[in-house]
Amino acid sequence: MLKEVSEEGLKVHEEQHGKDYVEPPPVPLLELGELQRWSFYRAVIAEFVATLLFLYVTVATVIGHKKEAVQCDGVGVLGIAWAFGGMIFVLVYSTAGISGGHINPAVTFGLLVARRVSLLRAVAYTVAQCLGGICGVGLVKALMKHYYLTYGGGANSVAPDYTKGAALGAETVGTFLLVYTVFSATDAKRSARDSHVPVLAPLPIGFAVFMVHLATIPITGTGINPARSFAAAVVYNNDKVWDDQWIFWVGPFLGALIAAAYNQHVLRASSSKAFGSFYINTTN
Amino acid sequence: MLKEVSEEGLKVHEEQHGKDYVEPPPVPLLELGELQRWSFYRAVIAEFVATLLFLYVTVATVIGHKKEAVQCDGVGVLGIAWAFGGMIFVLVYSTAGISGGHINPAVTFGLLVARRVSLLRAVAYTVAQCLGGICGVGLVKALMKHYYLTYGGGANSVAPDYTKGAALGAETVGTFLLVYTVFSATDAKRSARDSHVPVLAPLPIGFAVFMVHLATIPITGTGINPARSFAAAVVYNNDKVWDDQWIFWVGPFLGALIAAAYNQHVLRASSSKAFGSFYINTTN
Amino acid sequence: MLKEVSEEGLKVHEEQHGKDYVEPPPVPLLELGELQRWSFYRAVIAEFVATLLFLYVTVATVIGHKKEAVQCDGVGVLGIAWAFGGMIFVLVYSTAGISGGHINPAVTFGLLVARRVSLLRAVAYTVAQCLGGICGVGLVKALMKHYYLTYGGGANSVAPDYTKGAALGAETVGTFLLVYTVFSATDAKRSARDSHVPVLAPLPIGFAVFMVHLATIPITGTGINPARSFAAAVVYNNDKVWDDQWIFWVGPFLGALIAAAYNQHVLRASSSKAFGSFYINTTN
Amino acid sequence: MLKEVSEEGLKVHEEQHGKDYVEPPPVPLLELGELQRWSFYRAVIAEFVATLLFLYVTVATVIGHKKEAVQCDGVGVLGIAWAFGGMIFVLVYSTAGISGGHINPAVTFGLLVARRVSLLRAVAYTVAQCLGGICGVGLVKALMKHYYLTYGGGANSVAPDYTKGAALGAETVGTFLLVYTVFSATDAKRSARDSHVPVLAPLPIGFAVFMVHLATIPITGTGINPARSFAAAVVYNNDKVWDDQWIFWVGPFLGALIAAAYNQHVLRASSSKAFGSFYINTTN
Repeated sequence: MLKEVSEEGLKVHEEQHGKDYVEPPPVPLLELGELQRWSFYRAVIAEFVATLLFLYVTVATVIGHKKEAVQCDGVGVLGIAWAFGGMIFVLVYSTAGISGGHINPAVTFGLLVARRVSLLRAVAYTVAQCLGGICGVGLVKALMKHYYLTYGGGANSVAPDYTKGAALGAETVGTFLLVYTVFSATDAKRSARDSHVPVLAPLPIGFAVFMVHLATIPITGTGINPARSFAAAVVYNNDKVWDDQWIFWVGPFLGALIAAAYNQHVLRASSSKAFGSFYINTTN
Repeated sequence: MLKEVSEEGLKVHEEQHGKDYVEPPPVPLLELGELQRWSFYRAVIAEFVATLLFLYVTVATVIGHKKEAVQCDGVGVLGIAWAFGGMIFVLVYSTAGISGGHINPAVTFGLLVARRVSLLRAVAYTVAQCLGGICGVGLVKALMKHYYLTYGGGANSVAPDYTKGAALGAETVGTFLLVYTVFSATDAKRSARDSHVPVLAPLPIGFAVFMVHLATIPITGTGINPARSFAAAVVYNNDKVWDDQWIFWVGPFLGALIAAAYNQHVLRASSSKAFGSFYINTTN
Repeated sequence: MLKEVSEEGLKVHEEQHGKDYVEPPPVPLLELGELQRWSFYRAVIAEFVATLLFLYVTVATVIGHKKEAVQCDGVGVLGIAWAFGGMIFVLVYSTAGISGGHINPAVTFGLLVARRVSLLRAVAYTVAQCLGGICGVGLVKALMKHYYLTYGGGANSVAPDYTKGAALGAETVGTFLLVYTVFSATDAKRSARDSHVPVLAPLPIGFAVFMVHLATIPITGTGINPARSFAAAVVYNNDKVWDDQWIFWVGPFLGALIAAAYNQHVLRASSSKAFGSFYINTTN
Repeated sequence: MLKEVSEEGLKVHEEQHGKDYVEPPPVPLLELGELQRWSFYRAVIAEFVATLLFLYVTVATVIGHKKEAVQCDGVGVLGIAWAFGGMIFVLVYSTAGISGGHINPAVTFGLLVARRVSLLRAVAYTVAQCLGGICGVGLVKALMKHYYLTYGGGANSVAPDYTKGAALGAETVGTFLLVYTVFSATDAKRSARDSHVPVLAPLPIGFAVFMVHLATIPITGTGINPARSFAAAVVYNNDKVWDDQWIFWVGPFLGALIAAAYNQHVLRASSSKAFGSFYINTTN
């Protein structure tokens, strides 16, 4: 998520435009040159490994919690929420310099819509995330097969007392919060001003994930990450889970789309665009 | 909360006064020029959206926790306290650059008293926060109507075993802690010295909210944010809740007022003002 | 805890000694000139207010937790540990620039031994911390009198199944960890190199307090702060508590003393002092 | 873990190679000159003390939790996970400037494999970590002997319902996550770009430990640190524990080895090495 602007680029730009930050130009949809760079493949591998670790730790935490007969001896729902949020913090921190640290197709989609990654990279990341997730959940199944099957495989589905509409709403708003935080943390204007934001960004991003889990684990188990939901569905392979699967793609992508639009057309809009030419004396 | 001083302004000031920080001049009470700037409306929208997200996540967490028959399977009171504190961390981080990240009429009021926001902006923010909060709680009600009504709607009221005086005291001291932390985090002298404070400030501010919830959830559920208490009251619409509502406005505003006075007249007072001219050899 | 070296002083020193950091000269034991500075009184007031807030939030959390008949509906022992650690994080962050953010006579004592605060200031801080603590606990008693008396008043004493020796050991080692962290966080060499350490230090210091509470709440309730233990004893005023009180002064002061010695004679020792002149080729 | 490159070295290098970071040269396997430096002995002492504190706090937390008859009145498994992760955060922060803050033979081994510490230092650290750990657990046994023996002494062993293969897998993957985070946090390229990474690194490293404990406490109690597992085995001295001991050395060393290889041959590989000369237009 943390694409940094090179300092040289910054200086050149500053001299030319008298501003202290660069709005990076939109990334072309198809940047075939990427295919010739090792850094592209390295980034795809890093997304694969990070999503593997993400699903391994979080699903193992879910199963381990549920296996304790007396619930009080597990890590609790609070511990599960920490596992999801904390892993995103650690992994965004660790992989940001290599791949941008998406670890989530909805984040990748949001950045694609904002033209900050190419379509090629977005597709490659999404495939790597899904495959990595499947390997991560597969590892949990291999290590604790009996419990894995008994305790629901960490899969997302709509809780019996909620409608599909409610679940879709929860996924949409939750992903909006996450992707809104990602956009805020990686704003080019902000990065220029506070050069350490890229370093600090992983913490609020991880906390956003933690927060959404606190709120919506009772509704859907909380997806807000299609790779997470898809990987668990593939390995657990249950009808009810497959029936609900679309919710965990449509909701997150919708939330990411709204976040991208909010960021582009409200928060970062120049006054003229958003406001018409009604007012003349505008400062930003 | 995080109003930054422009670097140019800083340099000019330094040359003129030989100090390394700028005490920003008091903001005029009515700055009508703001109405002509898109950045003003954008800030109001950002406060609306942030307070919506704040109430949505926190009230959903409260209802989700209460719905679990065996309490141990919810996120616990600790999880609820995390939801409030963690959301403030995430949202102050995300909206600081746009609106200052108040998300709380008591914080806005404290900064108004300290002349750091205009009256116009303070009123607009407060209205936006209340409306955003109502939409956030409304969203929770829409997604989980039955449980919402059964489990108290996340509304603040005085617990049966406490007096209204105790509740008022708890709200006042709690908000004092929060607004004191906000003032400390955004001190101009400090910002100049440690230029990253603005970036780091959201974490202690969020923790202050977390702490107060740990202490006073058993007394009032913890308000320390009139928009939060008002929004939940509007949507839940219960007599007892409305009877106690004044406590969640008077307490927080009083606490913010005392914090502003403490900051202005004790912590930042020049020796002459606070001390009379009794001592001559003063250094600050 | 976070005494910063002025940048000018740093530069002068660097030119003279070719080092990139200043070892601040030992503070004189009696610096009477302090009495003529408003900044001295302001610091004492800040310690008073911070310790008041510290005891108010933490003791209210303890009482609130114990009052819930079914323990699972309180914040848990984990929540209590967070209250102590989190408040130290928030308060060290907020008062560091005013008083150094001690909020604990053992920390003040450790810095006195290391000659980083004057005897005068150490005495004034300790008195302010104890008085502030008493007011904080008194506030809790005023707000929730019945529960306060029923649930042990948040006072420290040795648990029935532990010896006084074990309690003293636990207090000593716990305070050693805290004061060791404080010294590490405020090392002059480190501050010069990583100029933001002063800004980041409050978090590990708060975590050190959190950690010690996780480990020793079952033994003594955890003091590691004589002002905290004394204030609770004064307001609760119980024979058993007074009998054990010495443990909560001797242990913390001993731990702080060992931490100061470890820091001075091992971690920061020049090789010649610690090592004799046995080896000649020494670096660092 | 946080070995910093001197700024002078950096500048020289930059002038010579036109890059903004120094890849530090591999450390020789046997650097006998280290034996003549006080800084070497100081580092070994610091590792000893830090591992002592680590085992003292964490094992005391484990025993304290288990001793509560009603589990809900302990800190919970979540509190135990926090104790391990939080202590690593505090101790890496505090000792990074002295010894690099390993506190774990697997981390030391990973850095040895990557040629970032000498063999001599690695052996000395490992011995100091094991001895420090034994003293830390011994201290817990001294303070709470009866409970220590009753509640399993904080020792690692394979839970009855898991195979040794599953335990080995869990230890390997868990240590991989930890050492991968350590490598990411101390990447030379990253340190140069974001000069504060060394200051911020302890938090994600501590979180990585926290996360692994959430996931694998039900399987092995979680080792991912041979000094921790060995020290508890020595003091508790139980047959089953000794039988499983090899798992807590082989797993962590294997995980560290894989992390070092991943870092060296994938993440930091120049394209030519990893990719052959297949593609010509490579950047980064």
